[in-house]
Amino acid sequence: MKIITEYLELKTKGDGDYHNITSHIETRLKETGLEEGSVTIFVGGSTAGLTTFEFEPGLYKDIKELFEGLAPKSKNYHHNMAWHDGNGYAHVRSAICKPTFTCPFSKGKLLLGTWQQIVFLEFDNRSRDRKIILQFMGY
Amino acid sequence: MKIITEYLELKTKGDGDYHNITSHIETRLKETGLEEGSVTIFVGGSTAGLTTFEFEPGLYKDIKELFEGLAPKSKNYHHNMAWHDGNGYAHVRSAICKPTFTCPFSKGKLLLGTWQQIVFLEFDNRSRDRKIILQFMGY
Amino acid sequence: MKIITEYLELKTKGDGDYHNITSHIETRLKETGLEEGSVTIFVGGSTAGLTTFEFEPGLYKDIKELFEGLAPKSKNYHHNMAWHDGNGYAHVRSAICKPTFTCPFSKGKLLLGTWQQIVFLEFDNRSRDRKIILQFMGY
Repeated sequence: MKIITEYLELKTKGDGDYHNITSHIETRLKETGLEEGSVTIFVGGSTAGLTTFEFEPGLYKDIKELFEGLAPKSKNYHHNMAWHDGNGYAHVRSAICKPTFTCPFSKGKLLLGTWQQIVFLEFDNRSRDRKIILQFMGY
Repeated sequence: MKIITEYLELKTKGDGDYHNITSHIETRLKETGLEEGSVTIFVGGSTAGLTTFEFEPGLYKDIKELFEGLAPKSKNYHHNMAWHDGNGYAHVRSAICKPTFTCPFSKGKLLLGTWQQIVFLEFDNRSRDRKIILQFMGY
Repeated sequence: MKIITEYLELKTKGDGDYHNITSHIETRLKETGLEEGSVTIFVGGSTAGLTTFEFEPGLYKDIKELFEGLAPKSKNYHHNMAWHDGNGYAHVRSAICKPTFTCPFSKGKLLLGTWQQIVFLEFDNRSRDRKIILQFMGY
């Protein structure tokens, strides 16, 4: 049984910059040599999220609209009133989406569906240098 | 320490067909003989979700209404415009609900509340043959 | 490889009573002596949730408003019509937020961002004695 904790670095352009990180994770998984287990992907931060969806241009827009509906940019957030950083919506989107995602693997492969990708969602209102945690657990 | 990756097969009737899969998972857990650890339940697919709720007819309807509010069927999804499969709402619901759920167990039992059940949520607009992944990790 | 399943007891005041449980988890983690792995936090119950956010008074209110928007108290829930316990909104909020959260740790520390806290969200309409499950897995 091994636990391997790694980091995936990503430069983002701010809110709505969503990244398909599936192939990065698959490559790292192959390098670990692990066959059975799971990977927990985690963002150490309060203004981003993780989920899966079919990463195609239509859904990309649909998911943006989903989060705009859940926490509109134009709303007056209590967070902004105190901190004046204008990213209250990003914090709220992150709290509902959550920055954690666990995906099992077997025979050395992530058990994703054919059209299912693991996506990092940048919600913050500015460019960020992200270090996404990948923790593989298995043998 | 053991990792056991299994599949639970389920035929669904399309959107709004929610299945209480708790007793299936409990049975499989007993068969593994594991006492301490956790099970990650995962759907390899982009149009379904997993969560827990009290599986009674009233809440069943309330949860349907929750997802109808989050991603209404009648909305014009960019996904549908490109792919014409009419299930854009199902993809969006899956992205916000997420297809992963981790539940710890101890002394051979899932640590669920008395009225809390693990539920598979079918969001797709047609009947599906689902293979739900159950990955038990523990000893 | 060790699995340690513990409980964190918490008395809550009912809906909107959110608790920052990060320092409790960090203390327990230190006591386990584990260096690498992850902790799964889980609520055995259907009317609470777990997530991370920056635990400051502004966002505290913003997150309350998020859940009030997702499942308003004033809505007529099918659950309430059958059970008359008036907490239908709490069940729905729990189903969308989910009662499970997995956080990796490395070198004995939770891999959270500087301003990111793990928060227990009470949604129920009355005071509750909560036993939150903390399951540490690692070495």
